Amino acid sequence: MGAQRIITLTTDFGLTEHYVGAMKGVIYSIDPAAQIVDITNAVQSFDILDGAMAISQTYGYFPPNAIHMVVVDPGVGSARRPILALLGQHLFLAPDNGVLSLVYEREERASVRHITADHYFHQPVSNTFHGRDIFAPVAAYLSKGVEPAKFGEEINDYVRFVAPKPKAVAPNAWKGVVLKTDKFGNLITNISPKDIPQLTSASFKITVGKTEVTKLCSSYAEGAQGEIFAILGSSGFVEISSNRGAASRLAGADKGSEVTVVFGG
Amino acid sequence: MGAQRIITLTTDFGLTEHYVGAMKGVIYSIDPAAQIVDITNAVQSFDILDGAMAISQTYGYFPPNAIHMVVVDPGVGSARRPILALLGQHLFLAPDNGVLSLVYEREERASVRHITADHYFHQPVSNTFHGRDIFAPVAAYLSKGVEPAKFGEEINDYVRFVAPKPKAVAPNAWKGVVLKTDKFGNLITNISPKDIPQLTSASFKITVGKTEVTKLCSSYAEGAQGEIFAILGSSGFVEISSNRGAASRLAGADKGSEVTVVFGG
Amino acid sequence: MGAQRIITLTTDFGLTEHYVGAMKGVIYSIDPAAQIVDITNAVQSFDILDGAMAISQTYGYFPPNAIHMVVVDPGVGSARRPILALLGQHLFLAPDNGVLSLVYEREERASVRHITADHYFHQPVSNTFHGRDIFAPVAAYLSKGVEPAKFGEEINDYVRFVAPKPKAVAPNAWKGVVLKTDKFGNLITNISPKDIPQLTSASFKITVGKTEVTKLCSSYAEGAQGEIFAILGSSGFVEISSNRGAASRLAGADKGSEVTVVFGG
Repeated sequence: MGAQRIITLTTDFGLTEHYVGAMKGVIYSIDPAAQIVDITNAVQSFDILDGAMAISQTYGYFPPNAIHMVVVDPGVGSARRPILALLGQHLFLAPDNGVLSLVYEREERASVRHITADHYFHQPVSNTFHGRDIFAPVAAYLSKGVEPAKFGEEINDYVRFVAPKPKAVAPNAWKGVVLKTDKFGNLITNISPKDIPQLTSASFKITVGKTEVTKLCSSYAEGAQGEIFAILGSSGFVEISSNRGAASRLAGADKGSEVTVVFGG
Repeated sequence: MGAQRIITLTTDFGLTEHYVGAMKGVIYSIDPAAQIVDITNAVQSFDILDGAMAISQTYGYFPPNAIHMVVVDPGVGSARRPILALLGQHLFLAPDNGVLSLVYEREERASVRHITADHYFHQPVSNTFHGRDIFAPVAAYLSKGVEPAKFGEEINDYVRFVAPKPKAVAPNAWKGVVLKTDKFGNLITNISPKDIPQLTSASFKITVGKTEVTKLCSSYAEGAQGEIFAILGSSGFVEISSNRGAASRLAGADKGSEVTVVFGG
Repeated sequence: MGAQRIITLTTDFGLTEHYVGAMKGVIYSIDPAAQIVDITNAVQSFDILDGAMAISQTYGYFPPNAIHMVVVDPGVGSARRPILALLGQHLFLAPDNGVLSLVYEREERASVRHITADHYFHQPVSNTFHGRDIFAPVAAYLSKGVEPAKFGEEINDYVRFVAPKPKAVAPNAWKGVVLKTDKFGNLITNISPKDIPQLTSASFKITVGKTEVTKLCSSYAEGAQGEIFAILGSSGFVEISSNRGAASRLAGADKGSEVTVVFGG
């Protein structure tokens, strides 16, 4: 038998409807021993990049035999394929719309299958809710030990996109973007020391919304209350933050806002 | 002993307070082996129909021995009775305020009991939180194997309401209503092909809010971006939707908005 | 082996990001048999009193061997200490910022340790997310049976605050405050019959926002629709409430609003 298997959920189905509950019911009906863990079900509606960020920053903390369902699926019911991806040692189920792109970036070994074995699906399969009708039952059968190869053939032309990277716009200047605002009001940018190494060593001026930031703090509490500063966040990106306050509100910025970094001066 | 038993929660207690946590604590204190699954705890406050819709569209996906707690209970502490209902093969705990009405519609066999065995309750029983003091401990004792008959006598005069159905207002015209707006902005109406079979075969014009819809899509992705269309949703009702956009905002409609369907013309 | 151990979460990390999911991944990677229960992850951002209220009103319902993680941690990465507290028979993990103050009030026996054994931490330890890097792994090792004494030395100078109590401002008058507004719009005050015993026996006038309340109901349903009344809530405090309506909106009051109680007259 072995230990129970973890199935994680990363979806945009929300918490105010019964959608997530229906998926869990389907899973437990097939595999009562499954252990379902919500990563988040509040991905921004239809937002594939937001879902990609959530799963890519989380899967690595789970045991390698976990099964990760990532269902941000605006193309449900169209020709887009459902896929099962073994990436490194981690198993993912998702629509083939690029939502696994940031995981593809991190893992060298990839085996991606087009899920076609419809005798594992919950019948009748709707055109509007494959989370319940396809991904949930496939996750449960995987959890019970059915081999990935049973669900469909390998493919190589799966969809992937490149996350928006900061661009050099002058010898000493970069332009990036706010990828999202979190619950605390932190503005999470796409700027990371991996792309711009001088961030942590040189003096800089970051402009975002109506504010200019020149201070890099190493913890939130280092900033004065009401002050806006930059910090290297837990996800590896530069965040524009404030100590016990919402930087998004203070700076008048949000997802999609342009971020400019100028060094020296 | 057998496998662990699932207890589901469908409540309006929300996620920002400790209410749901307190119920779970009571359950685990009595039955540490219970497996608690949230269907949703964000039913609209005091909204019995919203709770009725959530549970009726979900219970069927769970294993038949699951115990479903449905606590939308504006009458808590008044004369309204707590009930334990065996409906088909499914077990429910709820206040007797009609919140199980849409399940009664679907299941032929019903055995409903008035829960009176207060030695199973969490003492002292408050007048404001029977989810914690009555329904949670009764669920846990059921999960441990106590027979339903131990909790109280059968009753036949339990409360039920009829869900609002669309009405024929002319030989070729119907009036319905938006039952709810989901997280994606889909307007879920009370109109279903079961009530109006010509929906899927005849040409129609649906008016809701400030918009008119004449197209029936079979998937969200079939619609153009920004276009508003009708679709047969995963819950069996017609939804007014948009591809990657919130139809509720585009149409200027919400829960309670009138929906008119005219055929032919 | 024994039964699986419960780990509860009370945090302000929210449900829209992956933060809670990352903590759960860390826990399950160390102790796959742990049973994680969310009390709430929607504590108001940075609000230590709100977190203190949530945990103090909930932990008592859980089995005594549960491990309670309470991570409302605006000082993360600063000098504030991570602590492990055995309070009565209950085990808590938290930053040492007073978030356990209301539990200290309820439990006589306290053994509080400064967590320093960094070989149990998730390395590298960030300066911004100790929920993931310190509290989650320590909870998992406790759950696996590591003794509390292994994590650090006992301390006595841990931080505690006194919850804001109502003040007598005249022989027959008290001033209190709204501690929070819950999802239903109930205004939860800091006034309790423990502090003001005549509340349940004498006639009174409570002023909050733009409303005056003279009626004490024993259940929500006892109030007329639209009427605002006082009720002794499930948390032991007086709430200003309305039957099937949001008292907060009706009274024009919210968290922080002043509450005046005058007796007799």
